[in-house]
Amino acid sequence: MSNDTPDVLVLRSDTHGLPAREYADILDAQLPDHDVRLARTPAKEREFIEHATVVSGVDIDESLLEHAEDLRLFAGVAAGYNHLPLDTLREMDVAVTNASGIHAPNIAEQVVGYVLAFSRRLQTGLRQQHRHEWRHYQGDELMGSTVTVVGLGAIGTAVVERLSGFDVKTIGIRYTPEKGGPTDEVVGFDREDVHDALARTEYLIIAAPLTETTRELLSSDEFETLPPNATVINVGRGKIIDTDALVTAIQTNQINGAALDVTDPEPLPADHPLWRFENVIITPHNAGHSPKHWNRLADIVADNVTELSATDDTGSLVNLV
Amino acid sequence: MSNDTPDVLVLRSDTHGLPAREYADILDAQLPDHDVRLARTPAKEREFIEHATVVSGVDIDESLLEHAEDLRLFAGVAAGYNHLPLDTLREMDVAVTNASGIHAPNIAEQVVGYVLAFSRRLQTGLRQQHRHEWRHYQGDELMGSTVTVVGLGAIGTAVVERLSGFDVKTIGIRYTPEKGGPTDEVVGFDREDVHDALARTEYLIIAAPLTETTRELLSSDEFETLPPNATVINVGRGKIIDTDALVTAIQTNQINGAALDVTDPEPLPADHPLWRFENVIITPHNAGHSPKHWNRLADIVADNVTELSATDDTGSLVNLV
Repeated sequence: MSNDTPDVLVLRSDTHGLPAREYADILDAQLPDHDVRLARTPAKEREFIEHATVVSGVDIDESLLEHAEDLRLFAGVAAGYNHLPLDTLREMDVAVTNASGIHAPNIAEQVVGYVLAFSRRLQTGLRQQHRHEWRHYQGDELMGSTVTVVGLGAIGTAVVERLSGFDVKTIGIRYTPEKGGPTDEVVGFDREDVHDALARTEYLIIAAPLTETTRELLSSDEFETLPPNATVINVGRGKIIDTDALVTAIQTNQINGAALDVTDPEPLPADHPLWRFENVIITPHNAGHSPKHWNRLADIVADNVTELSATDDTGSLVNLV
Repeated sequence: MSNDTPDVLVLRSDTHGLPAREYADILDAQLPDHDVRLARTPAKEREFIEHATVVSGVDIDESLLEHAEDLRLFAGVAAGYNHLPLDTLREMDVAVTNASGIHAPNIAEQVVGYVLAFSRRLQTGLRQQHRHEWRHYQGDELMGSTVTVVGLGAIGTAVVERLSGFDVKTIGIRYTPEKGGPTDEVVGFDREDVHDALARTEYLIIAAPLTETTRELLSSDEFETLPPNATVINVGRGKIIDTDALVTAIQTNQINGAALDVTDPEPLPADHPLWRFENVIITPHNAGHSPKHWNRLADIVADNVTELSATDDTGSLVNLV
């Protein structure tokens, strides 16, 4: 069978509603010297993994890994990796890469879209439009505002880049403030630093992963510190915000509004109060979707496969976990 | 009476729902050596204009101008000036300035807000939110798109500046392409050049005044030339687009959508078909509103008043018409 099994296996998992078939085709076109195949059934996965050196997918379970004899790289198609059987992969000496960074452009566009929707009150316009009502209303202005970005990874950095033409002041909050960053100011997660930044913030953008530090980073104290004209945007993880405290902050007009692409719980139940607020935008965790998703991922994975063919050292691969 | 009349008169005309009282107060604070007053009635206007050297307002009619004896500057608070009695003002040797440029930051923010609303399909999110519906949907991506800006004045330039962080290609269309501009490419209004640009455009932004050249610049031919994924944004004047041709282009899916802050007719009648399209955003000619409107205008006018006190030559004033 070994001659009839691929060296690059794509698992069946679709992502963001994009079929894995497209990804396999793009990867195949980029790797003419390799045999890239999508496994269409669990049985084919077990068959094809036997001599594959590279497997790419959202997840892989240990029972499938037992069939792998020549595996050197698991190329994850998700930005995260904590859902993977990392210990087993390590024992098998399989390198792991992820899709970190490929969502940054589209997520950053969505973030700036939320910011401008609030600064220019586009929801008011859309509500008036629904009533066919032509009536002047006053907008706000972004220029001169302070935008604080929690997390200066690929997404936070892409947000700051896109804000460069808007004449705003930017503050970054990151684990390693000593590294500096693209923002005018960079601070760490010390409570005092965070509160000092929040007190000066008009737009707070959460673009960080969920960790013990970021869990409920925004709770009632923080909503009290934020000025009443502050808008909170979350494209990180729902649990970074204490949802009950957010609902209270909105109900009592403590902040100007919120835009949430991630919520806690998620999906947000149909009877949840957050759906109803005029000054809250909810999108269904789709900021990460882009029509260019598979192309950008295939670029990274194809480079890594080519590199892997040339070297014994997996340490030089891009996006290593 | 002359000792009890101001040298700087603010007319009663409010603008964008912002009371002229605020403007007069800001201007007064910036000009401690001048007597700045708001005329609260037509009678006070006639009285106060007699010895005023500067009058500021949206418009001024000829019957009021007959009372002016010492007038040297009419400081218009609108971006346009064709509504003013320019011949009479010229005969009276009164310099005229306008508010050109002060709306540029907020209009440009609104334009980029429309662009991102379309690229990330925020209206779809808001419609789902209205139904409390959490369901993934696919967005588009702005990065790599071509954005064409008609008009490279203060507003068009401010739009291009704000797009600088988004990795887009930009084309500018202006009367004087030989001047160059902030866009990657600059062309004139020759039909062939315009159509060549339109054929490559994903976002078409109209930020030009209405002239014989721009009137119905977008008609059925142009909608045919635009690719089907093109979105048209108009913050110039309604009559730059042939509205019937736009309705047809939307109805036949010739373009991706439109965002209109200006329409023809304006206000848009409640039964007009444009209100109902899911892929058309209508805002009530409010992109020009900013809470900083009076401050930015007062900065310009105060500088001009100070300059006028120091010189006989009005040619050095800012924003001369």
